[in-house]
Amino acid sequence: MNIGILGLGTVGGGVVNVLNKNKATIFAHTNEEINIIHVAVKNLSEARICPNDGLNITEDAFAVVNNPAVDVVLELIGGTRIAKDLIKQAIKNNKHVITANKALIANFGNELLSLAKSHNVYLLFEAAVAGGVPILKSLEQGLSANEIEWIAGIINGTGNFILSEMNDKNANFSDALKQAQDLGYAEADPTFDVEGIDAAHKLAILSSMAFGCELQFEQITTEGIGKIASEDVAFAAELGFVIKHLAVAKYADGKIESHVQPTLIPKTRLLANVDGVMNAVLIKGNAVGTTLYYGAGAGAETTASAVIANLVDIIKGTISDDILGWKSLKPMPICDTDNVCSIFYLRLLVADKPGVLANITATLAEYDISVEQVMQKQVDAQNNSPIVIVTNKVKTVTLNKAITQIQTHNFSQEKIKIIPIETLD
Amino acid sequence: MNIGILGLGTVGGGVVNVLNKNKATIFAHTNEEINIIHVAVKNLSEARICPNDGLNITEDAFAVVNNPAVDVVLELIGGTRIAKDLIKQAIKNNKHVITANKALIANFGNELLSLAKSHNVYLLFEAAVAGGVPILKSLEQGLSANEIEWIAGIINGTGNFILSEMNDKNANFSDALKQAQDLGYAEADPTFDVEGIDAAHKLAILSSMAFGCELQFEQITTEGIGKIASEDVAFAAELGFVIKHLAVAKYADGKIESHVQPTLIPKTRLLANVDGVMNAVLIKGNAVGTTLYYGAGAGAETTASAVIANLVDIIKGTISDDILGWKSLKPMPICDTDNVCSIFYLRLLVADKPGVLANITATLAEYDISVEQVMQKQVDAQNNSPIVIVTNKVKTVTLNKAITQIQTHNFSQEKIKIIPIETLD
Repeated sequence: MNIGILGLGTVGGGVVNVLNKNKATIFAHTNEEINIIHVAVKNLSEARICPNDGLNITEDAFAVVNNPAVDVVLELIGGTRIAKDLIKQAIKNNKHVITANKALIANFGNELLSLAKSHNVYLLFEAAVAGGVPILKSLEQGLSANEIEWIAGIINGTGNFILSEMNDKNANFSDALKQAQDLGYAEADPTFDVEGIDAAHKLAILSSMAFGCELQFEQITTEGIGKIASEDVAFAAELGFVIKHLAVAKYADGKIESHVQPTLIPKTRLLANVDGVMNAVLIKGNAVGTTLYYGAGAGAETTASAVIANLVDIIKGTISDDILGWKSLKPMPICDTDNVCSIFYLRLLVADKPGVLANITATLAEYDISVEQVMQKQVDAQNNSPIVIVTNKVKTVTLNKAITQIQTHNFSQEKIKIIPIETLD
Repeated sequence: MNIGILGLGTVGGGVVNVLNKNKATIFAHTNEEINIIHVAVKNLSEARICPNDGLNITEDAFAVVNNPAVDVVLELIGGTRIAKDLIKQAIKNNKHVITANKALIANFGNELLSLAKSHNVYLLFEAAVAGGVPILKSLEQGLSANEIEWIAGIINGTGNFILSEMNDKNANFSDALKQAQDLGYAEADPTFDVEGIDAAHKLAILSSMAFGCELQFEQITTEGIGKIASEDVAFAAELGFVIKHLAVAKYADGKIESHVQPTLIPKTRLLANVDGVMNAVLIKGNAVGTTLYYGAGAGAETTASAVIANLVDIIKGTISDDILGWKSLKPMPICDTDNVCSIFYLRLLVADKPGVLANITATLAEYDISVEQVMQKQVDAQNNSPIVIVTNKVKTVTLNKAITQIQTHNFSQEKIKIIPIETLD
């Protein structure tokens, strides 16, 4: 099996290193040599984490995808421009492609999968979600007897690191972000991570696999973690919850609801204990119940593990046809945001005068929203007092109407904070 | 695809129910009808969890395995006598076999797998370990790029329920066992579960998959949870640990170390938070790092999920040849118990007189054992006082010598309790 590698950065270098160090173990699985016959890099003179010796390296990536001796191309460049052109060219040359590129698959997967199907080659991307955790294989093959009801995942290590810092060390968002940047977990421009875009890319892939539909990245609602205050973390803890940046996709009545947003989850759930840069995905199947898959979401050899597993799959033929482009890859209707039902955490800051709580609860009752938990805190120097409420399960549109009405009152001192709660049962 | 089912108890009934309720989803994966054409039960008149209608049921199990129209036999009877004969007959008739029977595979898997190989049929058993969690598929295929360094699992729900009760509710072992029996989690004779035999069956399977060697069930050391006192649970908690009945297999220097025993693990580890009847397996691969797989370990549809996943694998061909009997399925040398290295928790009860602690630590130092943590508690009515010690990493044989020497002293009021600690990093 002759492979060509595009990119020798963290992931590409990791792949070369793992293929070297685990040669015997991998051969025991494949019974076939894996030869790296052509490698493309951006800059020949750049320092690398893997040795160069014996590698046939070029700066012309198209030379690799056009090399007739290459059977499988590993696209480990990233980005959605040149990487896309290279993958298309490789597929048109009837080569299998393995990529770790979640942004590319989320945005252009439908087009690329359909191209791969028409050329009868595989386009595989286990490494695109949750690093080396075999989450896509588990969904496609391990849970094939199930209708998947929902998925809930912590699939962005940077965001989870920040929230873990806020939770464990009472840090505020900007200090925790700075800490993540200092440690190299967050980039100088952290938008993709903290706004939930990276997690939405991964959720689009998980959701497509789980529900057997087209990739629908644009349909995912995202909300960043920047709005989470350290008081919210503290109040949540007092109520028995932890705040996580949760990626959720649910299927019900022929529609999908999918979003990435700060979410309260009960602290007794295993997912609530997934800390730092670790990733975990919880899947609810209608036969198996809930199963959870956990591991590092990034890192050179972690990601390489998934890339090489896909390569072994190609050699051994242990691939579902599904991944080649589902038989009937159709879009799935999306549940309107207004109609999404959830339990909610509400935090209000109110003037400390008689009848305020009565007024709030009466308004909620008017909209048929019941209060499951309520907590009023001591007044501050301005004579204002925070109130925290946990509602029952209610439609978003209904909640928003009640909130609007409550905010018209002059006792309401600031915009009411609304965070959804997932009980994950 | 025509299947025959042996046994319509919890698992067999679950398989029929899941095949019925998820017909469309399963067909979307297989693109081929699955027909249950022959079913054997022990007693035709027994009540069942699945409907009988349309099923061709017999009390003659051999009629099913000898039925020429049956392509795949699902052995869901359990036990190691008749089930073994039936599986052998099915294989000799060139039928694929799927079983949930861990005791049978652990004890007779080498013979059965080799028979299956010689008849060029599959013998699959995903359901034998951790219920519906696709742990064997993850090990064989998802982590194929890794040398597996170790596995640590909570793979017996009954034992974990008992320890969770002891931990959460400060119950003693016998009360927690009674509670497990009342809830139907433990059998009237709980030996298999509380002594670690069931977990050892599963560990033998995991270990064989992970290290690519023969099944070596007889080589696994087991120790039951009956010896755990509620004081150990409390002391462990004070030191930052939780006691779990941990199944561990490690590979180093060409040898395997494998045991099922009560073990202290740091309470910050995800595995420490796996409670009640839930199962989880933590795997350390030399590329991916640690990944964890979690779910219910038993239950009708949970187990059916794994049985049917194996069936879908047969139809789609997504099976590693490995599972058919590794190319070179050889026994692996076992690390002598004396040479196993571990950190240890020691609990002593000593007479409250001067110099006792000095004497103990001096003896440990004599054997080059250092003390990482020590805790001495108030004296009781008999003027005795418990001392708890956490050692550094030390050979079992060395520790045992030191313990023997300490116990010769007349200040030692009872047998010293020794529990290993796994840090799982």
